[in-house]
Amino acid sequence: MKELNKYLQSHSSSEMHPAEIAKILKGLNDKDFSEAIKLVPKDLVGDVALALPDRYFDDVVENFNAEELSHAVSELESDDQLEFMQELEDVDEDKASEVFHKLDAEDKHEIAKLKKYDEDQAGAYMQLEVFTAKEDEIVQDVIKRFARLRKENELENVQNLFIVDSNNRLLYTVGLDDLLIFDFSKTIKENIEQSEESFEPKSARDTEDIKEVVNYFKEYDLSVMPVVNDEGILVGRITSDDIYDIINEHATEQMYNLAGVDDEAEEDEDVLKATKKRATWLGINLLTAIAASLVIGLFSETINSMVALAVLMPIVASMGGNAGTQSLTVVVRQLALGEISQTDAFRTIKKEVVISLMNGLLFAVVMGIIAWLWFHIPMLGVVIGLSMIINLLMAGFFGAMIPLLLKILGIDPAIGSTVILTTVTDVVGFFSFLALAKYILL
Amino acid sequence: MKELNKYLQSHSSSEMHPAEIAKILKGLNDKDFSEAIKLVPKDLVGDVALALPDRYFDDVVENFNAEELSHAVSELESDDQLEFMQELEDVDEDKASEVFHKLDAEDKHEIAKLKKYDEDQAGAYMQLEVFTAKEDEIVQDVIKRFARLRKENELENVQNLFIVDSNNRLLYTVGLDDLLIFDFSKTIKENIEQSEESFEPKSARDTEDIKEVVNYFKEYDLSVMPVVNDEGILVGRITSDDIYDIINEHATEQMYNLAGVDDEAEEDEDVLKATKKRATWLGINLLTAIAASLVIGLFSETINSMVALAVLMPIVASMGGNAGTQSLTVVVRQLALGEISQTDAFRTIKKEVVISLMNGLLFAVVMGIIAWLWFHIPMLGVVIGLSMIINLLMAGFFGAMIPLLLKILGIDPAIGSTVILTTVTDVVGFFSFLALAKYILL
Repeated sequence: MKELNKYLQSHSSSEMHPAEIAKILKGLNDKDFSEAIKLVPKDLVGDVALALPDRYFDDVVENFNAEELSHAVSELESDDQLEFMQELEDVDEDKASEVFHKLDAEDKHEIAKLKKYDEDQAGAYMQLEVFTAKEDEIVQDVIKRFARLRKENELENVQNLFIVDSNNRLLYTVGLDDLLIFDFSKTIKENIEQSEESFEPKSARDTEDIKEVVNYFKEYDLSVMPVVNDEGILVGRITSDDIYDIINEHATEQMYNLAGVDDEAEEDEDVLKATKKRATWLGINLLTAIAASLVIGLFSETINSMVALAVLMPIVASMGGNAGTQSLTVVVRQLALGEISQTDAFRTIKKEVVISLMNGLLFAVVMGIIAWLWFHIPMLGVVIGLSMIINLLMAGFFGAMIPLLLKILGIDPAIGSTVILTTVTDVVGFFSFLALAKYILL
Repeated sequence: MKELNKYLQSHSSSEMHPAEIAKILKGLNDKDFSEAIKLVPKDLVGDVALALPDRYFDDVVENFNAEELSHAVSELESDDQLEFMQELEDVDEDKASEVFHKLDAEDKHEIAKLKKYDEDQAGAYMQLEVFTAKEDEIVQDVIKRFARLRKENELENVQNLFIVDSNNRLLYTVGLDDLLIFDFSKTIKENIEQSEESFEPKSARDTEDIKEVVNYFKEYDLSVMPVVNDEGILVGRITSDDIYDIINEHATEQMYNLAGVDDEAEEDEDVLKATKKRATWLGINLLTAIAASLVIGLFSETINSMVALAVLMPIVASMGGNAGTQSLTVVVRQLALGEISQTDAFRTIKKEVVISLMNGLLFAVVMGIIAWLWFHIPMLGVVIGLSMIINLLMAGFFGAMIPLLLKILGIDPAIGSTVILTTVTDVVGFFSFLALAKYILL
């Protein structure tokens, strides 16, 4: 509380940054938070709400009425307006529609426009605010218009001037660094005439997969990209700060998918939702664990005649599961980063098989000796060693195969691959160990 | 090959993009690659080498002599020069020193300067090329200088003008969007006088942790940030394209650490290196698996008198491991994204315990019924149900505790946490199930 007051008093409103305010708010307990959030300048409430982790969102909105929230939304850029309204709908649908009705016509229209897009489409991430000019405008006039828009706070973070035709079709992109060295007394057309090609825009389609757009940003070192619709009409722009968030979100999604966790459910305040989603994956895991147990059940008699097998069998399964997870994680991640292409499939599988075979041989010897010394049965060492080699070999092969196959089938290689893999390593681990024991030892 | 020729012939050299060339090269087999790489315009070889995945690097450099490589390096920006030279050192130290000696004095000096920094320091990621001006310069003159530098290809991707004093100490940052609406006939000082605060630079220290710098970029929606040394002297800048790469690298590192894989070893062409690193984690896993087996060994007699226990015990361990991994992954990731702060520790643990307790109860009932029906022993259902609840509860608690504790100890929460967790869930799973069986069933 004190810290927030100090910050608010020592900064003029133009100097305050939502991220700083959010950082102070995050350190407060629930009671202080409710009081402190009311001190936040009304113009910044929207930005602060979005800068805080998702779970704070309902704490923010319950402290303001629809009128205040509507003002907060009107101060946001279009993509943030959409994000705010969507989070508000999740928390309180009635309040959301009340807030929406209080917005002015333009904001309503823009939010509706962005809402059309799916969350994997580029359009869902764009800002509608762009700085445009016509080819035949004189540079000086364009800059005057720019100065006016800047003063009215209509444009933030501008890095490019987009040149459009009379139908708003995107023709060229001019970086401000180029604009600065143009001849201001001439038209844009005259300025770019000699090197038109270098102003050709690298643009994204609004319906394009956002993952592709992120790849453009990375490969071409971009910090902003115009977005056009199917007629080539400029509809918005995506900026680097969107890309930071998307890269992080995709990585989170991938890690969560590998662990059998749903990213959207986890971000929600609702614990029951996360519990249900996790239960789904645990349920699938239960089925595969039962399958592995059925394999053990086939060898009840073998185990009955040598209890050492029951003691040792989880080691084989555990080592296979771990080695497989190593391969799987590397292949899933490299597929996502585009480091493995379709033509690399064979090379990838070979590499993973070689690595796991080498480690299989290493740990076969280590564990073989341990088992021999532990139970004083030399052949038990041979059995666990052989099954270790078999299981780690399978682990490497399937750790690479499963994600590659899912990718070819058009399924996200991170989803479900861990469960499939551990089914293989459990079944192969238990079966190879117990079957070898049955035929070699007994 | 044909595709590359077509691309090279249809584009003037100023239009060609290294990312496009890299994309075509990636699709080729080894033989075609060696021929095709020689067709790449000499000025672009450095950029193309860096745009390709790491494992192609030695294929690129072995096709050029030291003279050609030295030219390729001289065409790169300073941060890319360092990256190129470091990769070259990894591949061929002799060639690297030969290439280095052929560089001009300025390039040598810049590479040496950047090399001083650790890979977790901001300085290691910066470009040394910056566009600066003094306070008392007239804007018009600054722009003229800028135009000249642009023509000489000395400056790329400029978004800000950095204002420095006579000692090169950073005073202000002026975005090109602000510069564009300045009065060009006045000095910079006169232009910024009325709103000096808004030009105060948000800068990074060269020795600062790069993770902190990435957080600034995300929180403040930046696309470029100046870097200063301990005396406040401007030494370089970090741009959004560096941030994309760093965010991705950190996410990869985290995923790999959770799976017991070393990110640097995996990127290397050397399979033996990756195998060794993976073997280290598999070795640790073997020790914990043996610990779990020792627990099973304590109950040999119990298992001997009821083999159903050997069949069912892996299910309890497997469910615990999975539920624990769910909790662990969520906590590790949210810690990394700054969504969990120190004060949140208790809330986080409570949430994970509640979720796993609910799922524990659910799967206790499900598995209890299955075990009862499978082996026709009602109390066996009770035993597996109780141990399921105990193990999932521990899984949730330790899944949250382990990363939080590692974080407090200053250790990366992703490193080793999976192994510690599965040790807990294996030991608790086997022990609770077999001990309950011993006292309830026998």
